[in-house]
Amino acid sequence: MSEIVRRVAERIRNLEIQGARNIAMAAISVLAEAAESSKARNREGFLRELLEAKEILFNTRETEPLMRNALRKILFEVKESRLTDPRELAGLVSSLSREFIKGLEASNRRIAEYGSKRIRSGYRVLTHCHSSTVVGILRRAREEGKDFEVLCTESRPRYQGRITARELLEEGIRTTMIVDSAVRNFMKTVDLVLVGADAITSEGNVVNKIGTSMIALVAYEARIPFYVASELLKFSPQTTYGEYEKIEERSGEEVWKDAPPGLIIRNPAFDVTRRDYIHGIICEEGIISPHTILEVVRRRYPWVLAVD
Amino acid sequence: MSEIVRRVAERIRNLEIQGARNIAMAAISVLAEAAESSKARNREGFLRELLEAKEILFNTRETEPLMRNALRKILFEVKESRLTDPRELAGLVSSLSREFIKGLEASNRRIAEYGSKRIRSGYRVLTHCHSSTVVGILRRAREEGKDFEVLCTESRPRYQGRITARELLEEGIRTTMIVDSAVRNFMKTVDLVLVGADAITSEGNVVNKIGTSMIALVAYEARIPFYVASELLKFSPQTTYGEYEKIEERSGEEVWKDAPPGLIIRNPAFDVTRRDYIHGIICEEGIISPHTILEVVRRRYPWVLAVD
Amino acid sequence: MSEIVRRVAERIRNLEIQGARNIAMAAISVLAEAAESSKARNREGFLRELLEAKEILFNTRETEPLMRNALRKILFEVKESRLTDPRELAGLVSSLSREFIKGLEASNRRIAEYGSKRIRSGYRVLTHCHSSTVVGILRRAREEGKDFEVLCTESRPRYQGRITARELLEEGIRTTMIVDSAVRNFMKTVDLVLVGADAITSEGNVVNKIGTSMIALVAYEARIPFYVASELLKFSPQTTYGEYEKIEERSGEEVWKDAPPGLIIRNPAFDVTRRDYIHGIICEEGIISPHTILEVVRRRYPWVLAVD
Amino acid sequence: MSEIVRRVAERIRNLEIQGARNIAMAAISVLAEAAESSKARNREGFLRELLEAKEILFNTRETEPLMRNALRKILFEVKESRLTDPRELAGLVSSLSREFIKGLEASNRRIAEYGSKRIRSGYRVLTHCHSSTVVGILRRAREEGKDFEVLCTESRPRYQGRITARELLEEGIRTTMIVDSAVRNFMKTVDLVLVGADAITSEGNVVNKIGTSMIALVAYEARIPFYVASELLKFSPQTTYGEYEKIEERSGEEVWKDAPPGLIIRNPAFDVTRRDYIHGIICEEGIISPHTILEVVRRRYPWVLAVD
Amino acid sequence: MSEIVRRVAERIRNLEIQGARNIAMAAISVLAEAAESSKARNREGFLRELLEAKEILFNTRETEPLMRNALRKILFEVKESRLTDPRELAGLVSSLSREFIKGLEASNRRIAEYGSKRIRSGYRVLTHCHSSTVVGILRRAREEGKDFEVLCTESRPRYQGRITARELLEEGIRTTMIVDSAVRNFMKTVDLVLVGADAITSEGNVVNKIGTSMIALVAYEARIPFYVASELLKFSPQTTYGEYEKIEERSGEEVWKDAPPGLIIRNPAFDVTRRDYIHGIICEEGIISPHTILEVVRRRYPWVLAVD
Amino acid sequence: MSEIVRRVAERIRNLEIQGARNIAMAAISVLAEAAESSKARNREGFLRELLEAKEILFNTRETEPLMRNALRKILFEVKESRLTDPRELAGLVSSLSREFIKGLEASNRRIAEYGSKRIRSGYRVLTHCHSSTVVGILRRAREEGKDFEVLCTESRPRYQGRITARELLEEGIRTTMIVDSAVRNFMKTVDLVLVGADAITSEGNVVNKIGTSMIALVAYEARIPFYVASELLKFSPQTTYGEYEKIEERSGEEVWKDAPPGLIIRNPAFDVTRRDYIHGIICEEGIISPHTILEVVRRRYPWVLAVD
Repeated sequence: MSEIVRRVAERIRNLEIQGARNIAMAAISVLAEAAESSKARNREGFLRELLEAKEILFNTRETEPLMRNALRKILFEVKESRLTDPRELAGLVSSLSREFIKGLEASNRRIAEYGSKRIRSGYRVLTHCHSSTVVGILRRAREEGKDFEVLCTESRPRYQGRITARELLEEGIRTTMIVDSAVRNFMKTVDLVLVGADAITSEGNVVNKIGTSMIALVAYEARIPFYVASELLKFSPQTTYGEYEKIEERSGEEVWKDAPPGLIIRNPAFDVTRRDYIHGIICEEGIISPHTILEVVRRRYPWVLAVD
Repeated sequence: MSEIVRRVAERIRNLEIQGARNIAMAAISVLAEAAESSKARNREGFLRELLEAKEILFNTRETEPLMRNALRKILFEVKESRLTDPRELAGLVSSLSREFIKGLEASNRRIAEYGSKRIRSGYRVLTHCHSSTVVGILRRAREEGKDFEVLCTESRPRYQGRITARELLEEGIRTTMIVDSAVRNFMKTVDLVLVGADAITSEGNVVNKIGTSMIALVAYEARIPFYVASELLKFSPQTTYGEYEKIEERSGEEVWKDAPPGLIIRNPAFDVTRRDYIHGIICEEGIISPHTILEVVRRRYPWVLAVD
Repeated sequence: MSEIVRRVAERIRNLEIQGARNIAMAAISVLAEAAESSKARNREGFLRELLEAKEILFNTRETEPLMRNALRKILFEVKESRLTDPRELAGLVSSLSREFIKGLEASNRRIAEYGSKRIRSGYRVLTHCHSSTVVGILRRAREEGKDFEVLCTESRPRYQGRITARELLEEGIRTTMIVDSAVRNFMKTVDLVLVGADAITSEGNVVNKIGTSMIALVAYEARIPFYVASELLKFSPQTTYGEYEKIEERSGEEVWKDAPPGLIIRNPAFDVTRRDYIHGIICEEGIISPHTILEVVRRRYPWVLAVD
Repeated sequence: MSEIVRRVAERIRNLEIQGARNIAMAAISVLAEAAESSKARNREGFLRELLEAKEILFNTRETEPLMRNALRKILFEVKESRLTDPRELAGLVSSLSREFIKGLEASNRRIAEYGSKRIRSGYRVLTHCHSSTVVGILRRAREEGKDFEVLCTESRPRYQGRITARELLEEGIRTTMIVDSAVRNFMKTVDLVLVGADAITSEGNVVNKIGTSMIALVAYEARIPFYVASELLKFSPQTTYGEYEKIEERSGEEVWKDAPPGLIIRNPAFDVTRRDYIHGIICEEGIISPHTILEVVRRRYPWVLAVD
Repeated sequence: MSEIVRRVAERIRNLEIQGARNIAMAAISVLAEAAESSKARNREGFLRELLEAKEILFNTRETEPLMRNALRKILFEVKESRLTDPRELAGLVSSLSREFIKGLEASNRRIAEYGSKRIRSGYRVLTHCHSSTVVGILRRAREEGKDFEVLCTESRPRYQGRITARELLEEGIRTTMIVDSAVRNFMKTVDLVLVGADAITSEGNVVNKIGTSMIALVAYEARIPFYVASELLKFSPQTTYGEYEKIEERSGEEVWKDAPPGLIIRNPAFDVTRRDYIHGIICEEGIISPHTILEVVRRRYPWVLAVD
Repeated sequence: MSEIVRRVAERIRNLEIQGARNIAMAAISVLAEAAESSKARNREGFLRELLEAKEILFNTRETEPLMRNALRKILFEVKESRLTDPRELAGLVSSLSREFIKGLEASNRRIAEYGSKRIRSGYRVLTHCHSSTVVGILRRAREEGKDFEVLCTESRPRYQGRITARELLEEGIRTTMIVDSAVRNFMKTVDLVLVGADAITSEGNVVNKIGTSMIALVAYEARIPFYVASELLKFSPQTTYGEYEKIEERSGEEVWKDAPPGLIIRNPAFDVTRRDYIHGIICEEGIISPHTILEVVRRRYPWVLAVD
């Protein structure tokens, strides 16, 4: 299977495929495709190939719990099944893959529905970076006829805030942009902060685009509600077992192309926001307290906590 | 006098002359020059011209208390004097101008001396934007043989952090740059925060480059000492009498040149840091508690509080 | 069924029936009564009538989760049952109604038992407004021979604190009354704050009589334990799905009868206390952390979360 | 002198004369009147009578630093003078009294001028109880054409908020009233809190109408600026020397006329707001940090700190 | 059974057996031994003896939830079983006892494994008092080749910090000792705080050696992660039902042997750390938020919550 | 002069003379003695000897601002005087020395008087370590007939709390001792915290016995007033000019005599309490806000700020 998988893995690594949901879908789609093309002669051979493929995909990026959980789900069900015929196993992978994608879409719709209820006409909503989940909520609120506006940061060094701005303007949402460091200056004019998540830890902390934790602190200082919109499957199970969620550090060139020699540039892609600064996580089950994330995942997706 | 003055005023307005100290020195130098060239025939005429010149210079920029206080000082002393001969008055303006500049230089040396004592070998000092006063302290600490490093922000939208980085690298100081929103991520590795000031209010709050108040909050959250290095004459006397210090708002193009139509961009140049987040103001009198700034100014520079 | 139900609904709307528990009991009693008198010929007809009755009762007041959950329980069980005979269905409604009331009484006894253990002889307990659950705890503590005193607020605008004071004096409990705004002045003399709840949200926040959130903040500032005594069924399931709990706003006349023309009076009946300010919720399961309310309800009363 | 003085003292004690400024003016006016009518034959006799009169006035109310400071000023100057003729001494008392009143009026005008600058069009200002100094600021802001609104509490138990509401409505200011305990609920809609003061301590704390400290805490929690408008002469010098400012406790009947027997009612008139919750004191010198009040008084009114 | 049990109970009471785990293991071992030697002729007789033995062991110490939960487990299973033959019942007790001890050992290994992942090379870990669970984590981290150091308090009055120091030095871990009150002075140099637990309450608070709550507060002030390492079975079920966890108070002689007559010495052995100051509890299930402890115990060890 | 001075310097260094006030008095007494025995023939010679003596005394201990300020005062006045005759100069030194000691005694009496007013009957006052200034306040309060009690820490490693306890018991004050780490456990029962100071910095921070800053934080968390009793001359002028106050680190043997080899022991004698945690400094001028200490010293003892 590995050749087919490797091609997609490469595209994930090169950022040709971006966004947690897109990456997860690409990974399990290619896994299904690879499974179909497997030449394995028995269950053992098939499983071996599947695990290999999983490893390749796991190694593309450090902070991709959604993709990893998607792969975990498929592996878990395949192992649980008693099937021995590689054909039938491949069929199982395919159907699990389709089902998972459908599940993601349903989660997304529900998050948009629940999140939209938090937005009232007249509100100013602050967001950071670009999150398709957050844009989904704002779009839905707009479709429901709510009259609100959005304040978005530019999100250095890659300016993802510009993508957010463009998408919101297309929806006809009144949008204002500020530099990242101006957030405290405008916080008092904000009614709600809404950000996405790259990963959620067992303690209920949220890993998201660098700057998020600073915004959360500023919102907390001014008593402004701070919500994270995220599928539960952004949960990172290894954190339960003590590991620190890894924080990708990117090239300094993103920050300053022609930096003078000798200058060190540090460019972490994410930071960690403590549960105490988060009012709620808007997920497919509704709005939950971040403190309970581990119990919620354990109840709803128990296979996530099975060891890899 | 006004033609001569107008030319310099124009250069201040156009940012050809930058930095609070440079602007203040340019303003009083040109005032002295203009005074020398005055054609006034008596005290009244001379004073009228002087006031006109002052008004032109006052109107160049909104947040320039150092320049304004420099002009206030000269006006104050001229009014106090009993001189009637325009020649003698012009001489007084010249000598006051020279004296003021000497005073500024002395203040600056003292701030570097006192501030440098706060830096210990092994420290990591965080700074924001570009402040020649802060660079002066760091340079002095380096000259005294201290082995420390500096973390500086890029300071969007105008990247003044790059100027800081270049100047520090020239001094042989180990320097690291981060994006503005990464400050909280690195705060725990910092021993001291050191920033400059554009203005200080009667309550002891500090107006400085946008983002400063956010950094102060983050330092406060992590119990890291936060110091402001500034001449006392950055004090803004109108705030004593109730006025809010004006915050210049600059063009949105600085943030995003080719912003899509419809996008609003807000670009305030400064924000306000509360006295509660400031450990001390390092000034020409030493390290003072920001809460007492008004009393300190009233004692040392009482003429600052005379009405314009 | 609707006529019978409407009469009781009217009395609820007119405040002739007051107190969350009284309202819930009245609502399900009348539902049982109406069910018995139903003329429906089949399951479908019966269900239609039942739903209609439920709607009428739901619409009497905005913040009555206990009543709504009581009705939800009955509707849920009726739908789950396979019964087709309207007679048998009516019987089911009756027995569910009786059972629910018994359950409420048992919950109440347990809350009194558990809450009473938090009160030690020598304590001064602060309470706000009137809550029969809180009075139940205090009465029980008194019956157990504990020697403590109570500080109660007057609870403007309707002075429900006076009801509390009368009831406590009848129990022989030493009672002191203060105006609402004096709470901070007396907080240092308090050992425990104990209030009731009108509703609890999925994030673990508590909706209660206006002023509660201020008292909670003051208790938090002085490190005084703040407990909420409430049945779990005050939980408001819609908040899980994003809705804000509605806050009833009452007539300005309650505040000032002869207010001068032109004066606007705002008179919200409740406010929201953040989970961070609440030490624990004393409920029928014992003392729980408010953060987990959603998981607790989901485990113990899963039907509450079924969509209406 | 004492008979004349006693009559006015009685009216102060009976609340016939109210408001710190009115009381201070009444006290020194009657002192002047009494001095004029003195039958003393020499300096010693005159001084003895004057001290007696002072004592009578001091004993009318516990928390009246403005009146006490007014009397202190006159006593201080009389003692400092070398006059021996009772006639001349009486003249001195009269002129000091007139001067003091003029000074108060000037202070008041300046406070209105400075405070008004803090109010911007579009603001919602929260105030508590009734303070003529605060109303003076609001009136001035209105006269300057600013378009703002005011939120005022009812201020139990004596409803002084109603006086504030009437006065503001007369000025054509849009005014909303809430019960005292609703302050936290509305704090997020507020731009500025403005209250008066009954006394200021040497640490910079402010004694004001019961409830003020709670509002200050709520403002602090939400990062809303909290200002106290007060003449510097509300400073209470004994607090410098360790004494606690006395807090008048009023009759329980003000809270509940027909309280049931056995109920204790506590009714303190004031509470203490910590300097940390106060952005600034708006006084005749401008806006000062509360932390420096003792130094400011010592510089400007050194006689206040002379022992009685 | 009681004689045998009494001997061990005495040794527990006399501190001959120390440490929560040792005590629990001694208690259930002796229970098994006593069960084997039981002369009971039927189930009823056996149960009576067993309950008696449990009571004796329960009464040895006030704060020993682990031992109590161990005994609860055995009692619960015995009652649940349908066995009637005292021989078979004794066999059940023995096998439950062995199983429980194995479970404890497994928990301990997992806690060491998970906790060790939180320690990075270069870290300085602060611990307080002596906890074999914490030492287990540190030992494991050392075995994994991590290069870190430990800061430990002396832990007055019984200097258990010295035991910790000796054990760590034996492992070759760089160890520094400070007096208890110096914790705040060194907190900024610390990367992680790690303590054990004597009991955990239903609200998620942790009862541990006196001083722990102070260290937690200091860590919180400086944003340093604070973790508690503990088996879930340190959970104290009575706290769920309202009881305060009892805090043992020991002899004043431990503090000052030759105290002057008249001096009162208070010597509580433990204090309570609020859940808000705890980042996570490292337990056999991984790292959990303390807020959810009750739900976790209810799910994993439901028998703990059965009434005694 | 130096021989005589050296002997006393040695005794100060060896802790034979202890307590800031005793040390200061010993230092200036011996200076006076040495001055009397000077063989200098002219002003220059005398001054040289005096400076030498000052240096010897300055070098005895790192944190002794009171002694240093005493010596500064004498040097300052001698330099200011125009005297040339060594005899007359020696006389001046003697009389300055006597005057300074008298001043200290007067300060002490005033501090006792002002501090005592903060203690009400029924209070429980917490103190830390041993401070003769604090004991002076407590003694005075007792003499004034106040009925209060004191909670004192043992103050490891040197148990100075035992000295405090003995002295208070001798005064008949009800006294309770706890270990240092139990402070948080008892804070809620405390009405007032009162500690001494070893040094005060220009920012208003207080250097005092290790543990003080932790107690201050705990008091702040629980809203308990925290006061520092200290002469203004504990002010350390070098901190104004940027220097960190030096913190003496003492031998590890004080902490653990027979520590195992390899164990590092850190034993700083003092820590630093931030001004934000201090309600007031009780000094000879009354109760001042710590924020203003520099201005107060500059006004009252301007010579302290003259460069050494």
